[in-house]
Amino acid sequence: MAGTDRQREMLAEGPAIILVEPQLGENIGMVARAMANFGLAELRLVNPRDGWPNEKARAAASRADHVIEAAKVYDSLAGAIADLNFVQATTARPRDNFKPVRGPVEAAEDLRMRHRHGQRTGILFGRERWGLTNEEVGMADEIITYPVNPAFASLNLAQAVLLMAYEWMKTAPQGAVEPAGPQLTPATKQHLESLMGYLDRVLSERGYFRTEDKKPKMMDNLRALFTRPGFTVEELAVLRGVLVSLERFSPRRPKGAGGAETEERT
Amino acid sequence: MAGTDRQREMLAEGPAIILVEPQLGENIGMVARAMANFGLAELRLVNPRDGWPNEKARAAASRADHVIEAAKVYDSLAGAIADLNFVQATTARPRDNFKPVRGPVEAAEDLRMRHRHGQRTGILFGRERWGLTNEEVGMADEIITYPVNPAFASLNLAQAVLLMAYEWMKTAPQGAVEPAGPQLTPATKQHLESLMGYLDRVLSERGYFRTEDKKPKMMDNLRALFTRPGFTVEELAVLRGVLVSLERFSPRRPKGAGGAETEERT
Repeated sequence: MAGTDRQREMLAEGPAIILVEPQLGENIGMVARAMANFGLAELRLVNPRDGWPNEKARAAASRADHVIEAAKVYDSLAGAIADLNFVQATTARPRDNFKPVRGPVEAAEDLRMRHRHGQRTGILFGRERWGLTNEEVGMADEIITYPVNPAFASLNLAQAVLLMAYEWMKTAPQGAVEPAGPQLTPATKQHLESLMGYLDRVLSERGYFRTEDKKPKMMDNLRALFTRPGFTVEELAVLRGVLVSLERFSPRRPKGAGGAETEERT
Repeated sequence: MAGTDRQREMLAEGPAIILVEPQLGENIGMVARAMANFGLAELRLVNPRDGWPNEKARAAASRADHVIEAAKVYDSLAGAIADLNFVQATTARPRDNFKPVRGPVEAAEDLRMRHRHGQRTGILFGRERWGLTNEEVGMADEIITYPVNPAFASLNLAQAVLLMAYEWMKTAPQGAVEPAGPQLTPATKQHLESLMGYLDRVLSERGYFRTEDKKPKMMDNLRALFTRPGFTVEELAVLRGVLVSLERFSPRRPKGAGGAETEERT
């Protein structure tokens, strides 16, 4: 319970996302969705062109209603960042000023460190058509640029937000967000040896090895084949089932037709 | 000039992005834009719902015309991945199978390494509403899941593509020393499909699948078993030799004894 609460709390924290004069409601909605995907919840809008609330934004948010409903609207950028300790500005073009420029990974790590120290942070995103003014960039502490294809550098607004939210999430303390998958434990060598013994027998019976002097090399190849994947016990069982089916049954005497089962020996 | 050419070349390489039955043209267009942002160019569409070409896709691509125009359409996933050596599938939910699960960073590093060794790779993305079927996931070598907020895990299609394209771009060489090692090139999916077709036939003939309704799940397991190792063409040939030996010959009629060879059909 405490763990769940802590996780939920963690996922509601993080930098504020500040959209400066966003033009399309759809984009605001997609920004909200991207934020929710990666555990950000605080959206601030500076003079959204089509006003607020915006039905198109809600529709595009795809149920990230908690972000949309909590969004705050400001009539100036200065007002929107007044309570923040540290602000990053995202830009596509290099700027002629003295601010440090960071990539998203480094920027997110910095945000996480500041977060741990109790600082309040935010990230600025400009208008869809032409980004942030130099004056707006000037209000930030640092600049973030993305490692985009120089020949095609214009990121959609929601995509730009997504990447920073994603990098923020990746800096989360481990445990909460690790992708969980099946742990594949290779079967013990004993299991593998059993399969090799079985193959030796059934293939020898069928003349697979042609001549005795070719057999050691061919067995080596078979062993390499079935060792390399690190098959699990379960996988070896499925494999064995296939081999046994081919060994014991035939189109004329399929499984269940009686007779063949009596030959059973594994 | 040479530098520019080389850069352009680099930016046209990388994994194919394969959209399985994408529903909205807008999403296909935004995928193309995200690909262009991070230097991917090869888009493959399996049965796009609204046909192809699609004007909405072109409009949403925001001038990523080179990606849209080069997109290829396929009528089956098997056809779309036939020439690829290694395929990753993106999924939101954990799957009940034997495949390795990776996060985007690790997945992109693996793609980059394979790329350096001349392998052709691809990443599968499912339908907007419900993703990939288990059977489709089964055709991939590995699974990618994103470190998303568990409470809000559904990524927009273009966002999902963007993240992998971004991670791919981040692995681009920057003068770093390339880790070198022996590399086994997995057979193309076409080779693997041929094996699966063979197994389907010879196991069906032998009653391996017990009942028709159990067969799809059992085939899924077999596909997972033989996909996971990334077997090379040579390994698949050895494996096929084992299976054929069991299929065609018996202790009473071993290879070379005459008779059985006439049944040959592979």
